[in-house]
Amino acid sequence: MTTNDDNRVSVLGLGAMGSALASALVRAGYHTTVWNRSAARADALVAQGTAAARTAGDAVRASRVVVACLLDGASVHEVLDPLAGDLAGRTLVNVTTTTPAEARELADWAAAAGIEYLDGGIMAVPAMIGQPGSSILYSGSREAFDRYKAILDLWGASEYFGDDAGLASLYDLALLASMYVMFAGFMHGAAMVAPAGVSAREFAGRAAPWLTAMTGGFDGFGAIVDGGDYSVEGQQSLEFSDLSHIIATSAEQGISTEVIGMVQRLIQRQIDNGHGKEGFARIIESIKAPG
Amino acid sequence: MTTNDDNRVSVLGLGAMGSALASALVRAGYHTTVWNRSAARADALVAQGTAAARTAGDAVRASRVVVACLLDGASVHEVLDPLAGDLAGRTLVNVTTTTPAEARELADWAAAAGIEYLDGGIMAVPAMIGQPGSSILYSGSREAFDRYKAILDLWGASEYFGDDAGLASLYDLALLASMYVMFAGFMHGAAMVAPAGVSAREFAGRAAPWLTAMTGGFDGFGAIVDGGDYSVEGQQSLEFSDLSHIIATSAEQGISTEVIGMVQRLIQRQIDNGHGKEGFARIIESIKAPG
Repeated sequence: MTTNDDNRVSVLGLGAMGSALASALVRAGYHTTVWNRSAARADALVAQGTAAARTAGDAVRASRVVVACLLDGASVHEVLDPLAGDLAGRTLVNVTTTTPAEARELADWAAAAGIEYLDGGIMAVPAMIGQPGSSILYSGSREAFDRYKAILDLWGASEYFGDDAGLASLYDLALLASMYVMFAGFMHGAAMVAPAGVSAREFAGRAAPWLTAMTGGFDGFGAIVDGGDYSVEGQQSLEFSDLSHIIATSAEQGISTEVIGMVQRLIQRQIDNGHGKEGFARIIESIKAPG
Repeated sequence: MTTNDDNRVSVLGLGAMGSALASALVRAGYHTTVWNRSAARADALVAQGTAAARTAGDAVRASRVVVACLLDGASVHEVLDPLAGDLAGRTLVNVTTTTPAEARELADWAAAAGIEYLDGGIMAVPAMIGQPGSSILYSGSREAFDRYKAILDLWGASEYFGDDAGLASLYDLALLASMYVMFAGFMHGAAMVAPAGVSAREFAGRAAPWLTAMTGGFDGFGAIVDGGDYSVEGQQSLEFSDLSHIIATSAEQGISTEVIGMVQRLIQRQIDNGHGKEGFARIIESIKAPG
């Protein structure tokens, strides 16, 4: 291999995200080879200057770094299991969404085949790739992360979390979980005010700065959780956090109470266990210990 | 009454919030009279220069503007019903947390008694009163809002929503609902990463900027919801928003799946109704039409 090898990257999987990754590579001057199960997906990228491989094997053999951005963990095995021999000695950067357990299993499979494995969790939508705000979490091979950081940084701020290949995926899914739950909370608020003639966009204009301000409370919650003493002074107590008003009003507005009722149950379980005077952060104990 | 009357304000209820409101008034030079059921709560405010009234009636008669910051709607009636005659011709600014229905009922009661009624929903914790980021929503008497805006602005950015006295409370509860649900989402994420040795504060340091960035999506969701066509191009589909990975990983981490499972149910109901190819914003239909 020559130094030039580091200028060659292959991307397997050309959904919206894989296409965005490949596009960023070719724009930055990398010799980029792409492959997708349905070949037509490559057309737009070929117009941008990428090479379209006829088979996944051709794509793997074209570059020392192979990026997999497929449907799920099973698709990664389906595409790459027959190519383990070709991948040996190369680096596999897998940004396919998987569970941490799947990422660890893939890392073990790669290690057994002599493949350097780096797992990535993309905290961005395709349109954000290469733009400010895009962030990608990695874990697995530190060597691969360091060697190819220039490539990874093309896509977004890249950060290494540790050699446990499942850690990036775990963090990724935890942040996505927080996001989806926040979206449901936004939608619940929008549904509450809708019958009063307030548009969802008007509500969005108030909810976005309000929730942004309220993320300022996370650090304080984190400090209480890490300290393990939920009775520290100055917190809003669980009893004070009673959500009956919100639930009653949601019902009066004719909407479902399941979104806000979920939070009330987390609170109530702690109150029922005798912790009503302690701080709101204690709801994490309702989550940590399934009821 | 003389012009001076507008320099006199009474505050009923000296919990953490009522005390913060009274403290801001006396600091700004208002002749402030306070009352609380248990009188000792007034001591710190008397030291700051407020007058402590012996009875709620004395407090009401001391000022043309009476601020009520009590426990709940029932407490407002309990304290003020016997004083309706004294309140006649005065302005009642009720910032007690109530449901919209309770606020409307109080507005009717006040109107019948010749009391000018302004309802307020405080979007701040007590420590934020008078600080940047504090916001208070009002509805009810426009005249009262305009006349006393200088007082209201002492506590935070004040905004008038309309003459329906229940509107401020509805908006308040909708924004609080969004906040509590977001907090539950944050706690779920923190509980997911905890078994991997990630502290809640470390997770908070990543979740706060991430969720702040993701509030940027609210306006787009709002536009889709208001437009009523969830099949507009460029959205993440409900099918793509399958949360099975997050639920499986939560279970693998040994934590409750009820927080994220709530969102999955909202998604699944729309998919089951044949809308899987439409955008994620459609989950609001699961909330608007209780299942």
